[in-house]
Amino acid sequence: MDRDIEGIVSQMTLEEKASLCSGLDFWHTKPVERLGIPSITMTDGPHGLRKQAEESDHLGINQSIPATCFPSGAGLACSWDRELIKKVGEALAEECLAEGVSIILGPAANIKRSPLCGRNFEYLSEDPYLSSQMAANHIKGVQSKGVGTSLKHFAANNQEHRRMSVDAIIDERTLREIYFASFETAVKEAKPWTVMCAYNKINGTYCSQNEYLLTEVLRKDWGFEGSVVSDWGAVDERVKGLVAGLDLEMPSSNGINDKKIVEAVKSGKISEEVLDKAVRRLLNVIFEAVDNKKENTTYDKKVHHELAKKVAEQCMVLLKNEDNILPLKQKGTIAVIGAFAKNPRYQGGGSSHVNPTEIDIPYEKIKQLAGDAEVIYTDGYKLDSDEMDEALLNEAKETAARADVAIVFAGLPERYESEGYDRPHMHMPDNHNKLIEIVSEVQANTIVVLSNGAPVEMPWLSNVKGLIEAYLGGQAFGGAIADILFGYANPCGKLAETFPQKLCHNPSYLNFPGEGDRVEYREGLFVGYRYYDVKQIEPLFPFGYGLSYTSFEYNDMSVDKKEVNDTETITVKVKVKNVGEVAGKDIIQLYVQDVESSVIRPKKELKGFCKVELEPGEEKEVEFMLDKRAFAYYNTDVKDWHVESGDFEILIGKSSKDIVLRETVKVNSTVPVKKYYHRNSLLGDIMADPHGAEVIKQLAAQFNIPMGEGNEPSDDMMIAMMKYTPLRALVAFSGGMFTEDMMNMLISKLNEQY
Amino acid sequence: MDRDIEGIVSQMTLEEKASLCSGLDFWHTKPVERLGIPSITMTDGPHGLRKQAEESDHLGINQSIPATCFPSGAGLACSWDRELIKKVGEALAEECLAEGVSIILGPAANIKRSPLCGRNFEYLSEDPYLSSQMAANHIKGVQSKGVGTSLKHFAANNQEHRRMSVDAIIDERTLREIYFASFETAVKEAKPWTVMCAYNKINGTYCSQNEYLLTEVLRKDWGFEGSVVSDWGAVDERVKGLVAGLDLEMPSSNGINDKKIVEAVKSGKISEEVLDKAVRRLLNVIFEAVDNKKENTTYDKKVHHELAKKVAEQCMVLLKNEDNILPLKQKGTIAVIGAFAKNPRYQGGGSSHVNPTEIDIPYEKIKQLAGDAEVIYTDGYKLDSDEMDEALLNEAKETAARADVAIVFAGLPERYESEGYDRPHMHMPDNHNKLIEIVSEVQANTIVVLSNGAPVEMPWLSNVKGLIEAYLGGQAFGGAIADILFGYANPCGKLAETFPQKLCHNPSYLNFPGEGDRVEYREGLFVGYRYYDVKQIEPLFPFGYGLSYTSFEYNDMSVDKKEVNDTETITVKVKVKNVGEVAGKDIIQLYVQDVESSVIRPKKELKGFCKVELEPGEEKEVEFMLDKRAFAYYNTDVKDWHVESGDFEILIGKSSKDIVLRETVKVNSTVPVKKYYHRNSLLGDIMADPHGAEVIKQLAAQFNIPMGEGNEPSDDMMIAMMKYTPLRALVAFSGGMFTEDMMNMLISKLNEQY
Repeated sequence: MDRDIEGIVSQMTLEEKASLCSGLDFWHTKPVERLGIPSITMTDGPHGLRKQAEESDHLGINQSIPATCFPSGAGLACSWDRELIKKVGEALAEECLAEGVSIILGPAANIKRSPLCGRNFEYLSEDPYLSSQMAANHIKGVQSKGVGTSLKHFAANNQEHRRMSVDAIIDERTLREIYFASFETAVKEAKPWTVMCAYNKINGTYCSQNEYLLTEVLRKDWGFEGSVVSDWGAVDERVKGLVAGLDLEMPSSNGINDKKIVEAVKSGKISEEVLDKAVRRLLNVIFEAVDNKKENTTYDKKVHHELAKKVAEQCMVLLKNEDNILPLKQKGTIAVIGAFAKNPRYQGGGSSHVNPTEIDIPYEKIKQLAGDAEVIYTDGYKLDSDEMDEALLNEAKETAARADVAIVFAGLPERYESEGYDRPHMHMPDNHNKLIEIVSEVQANTIVVLSNGAPVEMPWLSNVKGLIEAYLGGQAFGGAIADILFGYANPCGKLAETFPQKLCHNPSYLNFPGEGDRVEYREGLFVGYRYYDVKQIEPLFPFGYGLSYTSFEYNDMSVDKKEVNDTETITVKVKVKNVGEVAGKDIIQLYVQDVESSVIRPKKELKGFCKVELEPGEEKEVEFMLDKRAFAYYNTDVKDWHVESGDFEILIGKSSKDIVLRETVKVNSTVPVKKYYHRNSLLGDIMADPHGAEVIKQLAAQFNIPMGEGNEPSDDMMIAMMKYTPLRALVAFSGGMFTEDMMNMLISKLNEQY
Repeated sequence: MDRDIEGIVSQMTLEEKASLCSGLDFWHTKPVERLGIPSITMTDGPHGLRKQAEESDHLGINQSIPATCFPSGAGLACSWDRELIKKVGEALAEECLAEGVSIILGPAANIKRSPLCGRNFEYLSEDPYLSSQMAANHIKGVQSKGVGTSLKHFAANNQEHRRMSVDAIIDERTLREIYFASFETAVKEAKPWTVMCAYNKINGTYCSQNEYLLTEVLRKDWGFEGSVVSDWGAVDERVKGLVAGLDLEMPSSNGINDKKIVEAVKSGKISEEVLDKAVRRLLNVIFEAVDNKKENTTYDKKVHHELAKKVAEQCMVLLKNEDNILPLKQKGTIAVIGAFAKNPRYQGGGSSHVNPTEIDIPYEKIKQLAGDAEVIYTDGYKLDSDEMDEALLNEAKETAARADVAIVFAGLPERYESEGYDRPHMHMPDNHNKLIEIVSEVQANTIVVLSNGAPVEMPWLSNVKGLIEAYLGGQAFGGAIADILFGYANPCGKLAETFPQKLCHNPSYLNFPGEGDRVEYREGLFVGYRYYDVKQIEPLFPFGYGLSYTSFEYNDMSVDKKEVNDTETITVKVKVKNVGEVAGKDIIQLYVQDVESSVIRPKKELKGFCKVELEPGEEKEVEFMLDKRAFAYYNTDVKDWHVESGDFEILIGKSSKDIVLRETVKVNSTVPVKKYYHRNSLLGDIMADPHGAEVIKQLAAQFNIPMGEGNEPSDDMMIAMMKYTPLRALVAFSGGMFTEDMMNMLISKLNEQY
């Protein structure tokens, strides 16, 4: 429905406009009834609705209405499946519509800088391309049904430690290429109704009042037209926030900040137009919500549960499968060990905490699919404690010894991972580790199923034959893992983050979580595999890694052009064949490497991926399109993405470590970068510039300056010395032959070309 | 002789004063004859005199008068011997006096940030404590004879790449704790006559005109009273330099900059007092030089050569000695392989390049000591090329096969290491590596002697039984290595730097040598072992490592106090015993570890070392004195060194990786650090401060604010949430119960204690 937003704004009083800029309460915007502006409802997400029935909070403490709990972001991203996450979005939207919710808060696209961040289970990846692709499709799914999203937490909320006061110090290239890029495609392609600003500061300014962030980057550079909402309680100074581009403060400020806005306009501190802009944007969102509202809709809880199961299956990552121990045979004795098998760990703590419609119990589901096999069970550890329980461990040992194969359910208890605080280390509880150790001592056929939101150290890895990373699989995790274990589903997830051998190998380790209220992102661009690659530190499991019950071969890589301008695109094709015995899906990854660069760049970066399903023996051709951005870095001088002319390698890999095909292409920049010369410009730089070399030659001839003559660069040192000599040092060394005036003339001449 | 410097200054014309501030030519200051101000002579050093007879240059190109070439800095530092380097200083001074030189340019105390830096062979260590101790004693030695030094290159000249234009971006704590600290003790304890400023910029400003560097830190904080001299050609803008504290520009500016100084004073741009200060400082140095000048002195070249040999023996580091392959037996057949055995590599290129008085040839010296053994020789590689020579390799193989033991002389040719440019990689030439590989294939008893100024990768390490790192051993290297090989000298050096397994493991790797004219020291404090320790990256050989032909045991560590104030000192004692068969020297290392810190700190830092000589069976007690500085970090808020009260571990080690004894002491700060509270102060921080907790309690009672009540922190998340909540968010979340006015009142109350 087309509405006269401008007309409505013009009828609003200053106080009404200000009132619209903060919440009514915890979950609603303020209505202005005399003008027909309704209140709309938002609720927490992003992998399940958290609509609170009674008392409100933003921490997941009070109970919410039942909703389907899908796998959390960390798992979803391992599907590398754009269509799948879109379907999750659609289902979430159906639940929102049924509950009268207009905006679901999510997805969360923050980069996994450290494995310790308490919210990593909600976040998607260490790689901005993968993260932004998944976030974009999540948003597309939700919004296709007329429900809004709130892409969060913009930006650099990469730790929970002191999240409301910490100042993240990040250089601009790193922001643009890593931390912003994770939001950028989602904003540009999926156009979320709202973006939620983060709690923390970036480079000295709270995100909630950061004009560079909320206006320069988000609106001007990316063309975002929706509203910016504060994270709950993220507002420091409301008027500054309004000027910076923060439209809606959540939750209510109890009128305090509304008054401050009114006063600021009245005193002339800010112009009313600043407020009007925010109000216009908010009205657009509110009426979009109203127009899409559907009364009396419902959704089929069973169908959504089935979807949750299918999604969980597509997310799990098979990390080890020695002797093809998996899938399990439906005979003999199967020992299921670990309390997680009866009390599954399937979601994290905090604002994303969902009250599930039902819960699949892994042990039950395994029994259902076990066929002729006998399934025996023991707890192995206590759920609420890290302490070893000798009785439980002995029982586990006996149980494991009695069976033909043992499945240990282990990982991180919910208390280890939550919004609000970070993990202090990367260990699993001692009693989980000990359990695996003890079981694998007596049982050669041990398989571990991990439930956790982020990487853990695995001291027992070499002792077990099978390992499935299930992440936090949502309410249907139990059914999904049973299908995977018995081969009714074929694992097809790949890691969306690096699993380091030890925490200290992580690139942020020396600077996480910072000192006091200051955290410096000194690793810069080298996040995740970008770091392990260049530093040649062997990860436990690399980014993009994951096994299948079948295997795939890649062939016939081709590029449609071997040389292009940066205004053109390149199409890359490659054939993938299922050379195994069962149907399966594979994720083909495309990385780009700049062969030579004048700026510091990662060794390779993910620039494309594609998931295909193949029957045994089947072959398909997959296609990738690469544009300028695939080759560019963010040039902070020209304030834009820039390609340095030269060769690039296009790498096709099964993971970031397993590159199987490659092609070299040449990309030419169409954007000249201007060079300005000055008294400290180096002779070598000038001589390397054709114009510069010509000018130097002319002047040397004109003034008869013995540039280099009589003292020929006779060895490496002399050549280096000449190259690294600034013009002003030539004056000093020339013994009066090359004067300061001559130098200044030379500089003018050098800069004349522009 | 006491002189009326003030009187002389008052008689000088403005032009005369300005003239004193730049060189007469390449190596002399300007005289002012009418006032009896003479010209004094400086020459390059620091491990041998480079006085040029004819044409002058600052690059070591033109021939200089013969002088004793001692081991270069990289080797000298491995002696960890304060007295030894003092003796080298005394010998250098004797040569200076004989040649009429008043100031020798050195020592060079820059930190080895990257193994690639072209001048690492001149520099001392990756550790500022070791580096500054060695530099201080070098200076003490030289200056004890009435010759001046020029401690260089102040500061952060840690790469040759673009050294005259590069801007080193370094945070202040890192500067103070690492890069400045390497100069600090040398300045404070040894009082060099002059300090030489570096070519590069630090944080945007050329060192030659950096007031923070040359005045704040050097003069005000450290009490330096000598003159600052520019590195040759380091002056960008002379007047700015004068104001910043640069007294003497070298070499001559041909009168150009003298005029600029005169103009600046005349125009009132700078006050004449600025110039007078520089002149006063220069006159002090000049007259100090004059007073110490000795006519017609000579030195005994033979005695100095013998000293050079003794020094070289004390510097070499035995890195591997499997099956006690060393010392060699004086029987059977010894194959000496590698052209370096006949053309030793014993010094580096550039301004430190010495024209030696004589050269010991390793092969000759080995033959002299071989006793009954037959010594056979072959080149193995060509000196002037990296290319494999099949004929030479085959000959080497045959020679090695014929012998009972093979000594391969290899390392880095002079072209690999020089002032002026950095190495692009850490490899030895292919033909050197191949030679070792081929020899060790046919000869199980292979020993490698390396001549190089900085670490190399060693792909052949596991194939050889013996390895001696000889660094650049000076002109008597040949005699020294023969003594070491046959056991006439017992190796007693330990590494003053980490040898990484691969270059990419080095902490500066991601940011060396930077982008264009900007290099960011993002690794911060984590230089050398400080990095490998914390990141748990296994080095090839750790800092402080070195073997001996005997072995030592450490016992009975004691501290005189278990708890002290930071105004007191702690004495640490430990007994060291020679438990082997031969006499030898050991270097006992003391590291300090802050057990818990609110700021980012290295795991441990060297704070003491001691070298002792022990006969077989002999035991000595060594003693270390630790003061505040041993426990402190540089606090950038209070702009001073600060100790955080708490426990510290004192570690006694044979190397940085081999800690054998430890004691815990408690150090209490006597300097309160003030806390200021504001609207974004966190509840947890306030509650952790006893005064803060009291204020909060009082106000909560007074206003009946339900702080925490009714919503008790029930789990980890709630506790974390409360802890990380800023005061202003309490206002937002309190629903109007805790107003902004109440918050402001609270903040006033909290800050009242000061």
